Amino acid sequence: MVSTDPSTLQPVPARRFELLTLGDELLLGLTANGHLTFIGAQLGMRGVQLARNVTITDEAAAIARQIRESWVQADVILTTGGLGPTCDDRTREVIAEVLGQKLVFDPEIEAAIAERFNRLGRKMTPNNLKQAYRFERGEVLPNANGTAPGLWVEQDGKILCMLPGPPNELQPMFVEQVLPRLAERGFLLVHEAYVQIRTSGIGESALETKLQPIFDRFGSALNIAFCAHQGQVDCRLSSPTGELSDVKIEGIAAECAALLGEDFMCFGDDSMAKVCADLLRAQEKTLAVAESGTGGMLASAFTDLCGAAKFFQGGVICSSNEAKMTLLDCPECLISQHGAVSAECAVALATGVSETLGADYAIAITAFSGPCSGTKENPVGTIFVALHAPHGVWSKKLSYPGPRKTIKTRTVNIALDWLRRELVRTQGGNALPGRRLTAMQ
Amino acid sequence: MVSTDPSTLQPVPARRFELLTLGDELLLGLTANGHLTFIGAQLGMRGVQLARNVTITDEAAAIARQIRESWVQADVILTTGGLGPTCDDRTREVIAEVLGQKLVFDPEIEAAIAERFNRLGRKMTPNNLKQAYRFERGEVLPNANGTAPGLWVEQDGKILCMLPGPPNELQPMFVEQVLPRLAERGFLLVHEAYVQIRTSGIGESALETKLQPIFDRFGSALNIAFCAHQGQVDCRLSSPTGELSDVKIEGIAAECAALLGEDFMCFGDDSMAKVCADLLRAQEKTLAVAESGTGGMLASAFTDLCGAAKFFQGGVICSSNEAKMTLLDCPECLISQHGAVSAECAVALATGVSETLGADYAIAITAFSGPCSGTKENPVGTIFVALHAPHGVWSKKLSYPGPRKTIKTRTVNIALDWLRRELVRTQGGNALPGRRLTAMQ
Repeated sequence: MVSTDPSTLQPVPARRFELLTLGDELLLGLTANGHLTFIGAQLGMRGVQLARNVTITDEAAAIARQIRESWVQADVILTTGGLGPTCDDRTREVIAEVLGQKLVFDPEIEAAIAERFNRLGRKMTPNNLKQAYRFERGEVLPNANGTAPGLWVEQDGKILCMLPGPPNELQPMFVEQVLPRLAERGFLLVHEAYVQIRTSGIGESALETKLQPIFDRFGSALNIAFCAHQGQVDCRLSSPTGELSDVKIEGIAAECAALLGEDFMCFGDDSMAKVCADLLRAQEKTLAVAESGTGGMLASAFTDLCGAAKFFQGGVICSSNEAKMTLLDCPECLISQHGAVSAECAVALATGVSETLGADYAIAITAFSGPCSGTKENPVGTIFVALHAPHGVWSKKLSYPGPRKTIKTRTVNIALDWLRRELVRTQGGNALPGRRLTAMQ
Repeated sequence: MVSTDPSTLQPVPARRFELLTLGDELLLGLTANGHLTFIGAQLGMRGVQLARNVTITDEAAAIARQIRESWVQADVILTTGGLGPTCDDRTREVIAEVLGQKLVFDPEIEAAIAERFNRLGRKMTPNNLKQAYRFERGEVLPNANGTAPGLWVEQDGKILCMLPGPPNELQPMFVEQVLPRLAERGFLLVHEAYVQIRTSGIGESALETKLQPIFDRFGSALNIAFCAHQGQVDCRLSSPTGELSDVKIEGIAAECAALLGEDFMCFGDDSMAKVCADLLRAQEKTLAVAESGTGGMLASAFTDLCGAAKFFQGGVICSSNEAKMTLLDCPECLISQHGAVSAECAVALATGVSETLGADYAIAITAFSGPCSGTKENPVGTIFVALHAPHGVWSKKLSYPGPRKTIKTRTVNIALDWLRRELVRTQGGNALPGRRLTAMQ
């Protein structure tokens, strides 16, 4: 989009969105409420913040009471779950009653369900036909990955949309069908509403202070929101009044990125491992890791990425001294002199794994991850990270007291950030990786 | 508890619990609502299911409206977040107004906050004193890990309890202070309400069919709830009417476990890696892994456990053929003849890593994790797992189409379950690991 369409400059009128997530498993803490995270983020990108999320049981009385209450307050109600074939899935019936609508049998839905069972080579049980009913005055949202279609009702100037519970069914339906429908009706922006600048290694207040002179030039036309998470701070730039065009906002974001230098990580929401992988691939370099203390978590971050085998040569989890010596040629005298958790050992492991696997870059981690390890000099939470690059090898001592999993996660983030900075430097400046607003159109 | 206390046999009277989670970051999908998962599970263990969870913004008007609405319906309202020192943390004031209470300055809270700042060597800013106010008719719940204490109000036969948002502050306060207070007042059970039987490798309906003859002997006195998640099915036994004593329920659970044999994993909620680790430690055996395709995820599951270094010898992430050959002596001709993703290669890697690291047991995984790999014969989702034990080495072919992360997770679960079964067999029967009701007292 190059902002020729004036409609994209219009702000979204304030409408109240409520999300109703149904299911005992949510209230019993058996499953995390991923629907709130997903739908909240999707709407947020389109300039809308959910006013409320209510999680209730599958009971008919609870559903009826909540729908009645929300229908008065909200302009858009999204529901998740309760559309399945079993007898406790009463959501459809209850909501029809509250809205004063009849449910009608839809042969097209029946055909789609039958076709799905046929394709999977399974027999359709009669209770599946419950899912073939739709509101008499409403639409059907086809479900490519399951039997229960979504249902869409517009009534009294309001919208009610019911979606099935399984995330692999709900998520594509939401992105491909619900978002465009809401955008068509002017209930949210037709494209992403902000540019997200992802940073690493700079705190929230330092980031704000550094960027403030740029922000000041645009006054209230520019909206800025910060969000800090594990080792990273995101800064979102938008223009809710539509005063600044998308191209203008992207220009501001690029200026911020240039000012931030190495602290700028990417636009959008790529993971640190993804950013490192993109830089390695661009420079046609390979990587190997040696992990003690983080035991596979660093390697796993890389192998989550598709095509990892192209740049990731592999790694060694060298918890034991035997593994350090046998697999990575770490000298026994070095371990006994300096200890397995030491700068010297980390350097030896980084060099060892780089040489053994023939990788250009290597990261090695040794740590006391606790809670039942550590020495007086190097207590639990002491970490040594070493980075081997074609032009040298270095080590760093870190200290992060905390629970074991937190230590592992933080150490992996620090190691990834170090590699990222080294790769940005060898590339001779900032790569500006990640997606941009204009690339989304 | 040996059920001599008759109070533990009393059912909990039905009271309506609502959880109010405050924060824009939840509604924007920036943070998962972990408070619902944690508090829902904690209450569930004590025989109470949350009736509703409502997530709203930090705005005063939204808070006031929701508290008014919930106060009418609920017997217990728990709130999280909004107790911080900044100006947008208005929860305390708004709730006091709705309940018709005054906030009073509490010098004891002030002293605790000042002491905390002093201990951390930081300067206390004046806005922190906001947190020193409590309800005039209410109690203060000390916060050992932060500045904002919790607040507790009893009024009109109802309870309102406000807790700070950071999980490391909320969670210990909830377990150590909120649960006992609610139990004292008879709002929940004084101890855990059920025995959880965790199973692996058996589907929900097969599990139910197998155990039904046992359940039938106890009729409606025994409550049974199933919950299926990634590779495991949990079955919770309880007696909500108090008709069956805890000892009796434990006896039934032990009978179920015996009948299930190897499909029984543990009582409670230990992870599969934890169960394997306990079995390895009990038998004084060691383990090593070789991962291609799951790239470190299996090793990471073990190294999440404290004391992993005692039984976990280490592992190799052998994404590249070079890594397989150099580190694990996998013959080049074997790879070229059978392929890197093959039963033969998996067996060679398991044997190789077991020998190299001197481990009694070894798991090797080779897989096409996709989406940009695979062959015609072995498409994406084809996985070969090999298990090396002191008494032999075997391999298994699996097929799990799906996204890359799902394939990784499923493969790790299958590999762990295989190791678990092998260890149970060598132990000569079921280890009945994990916690039990009576051990909790």
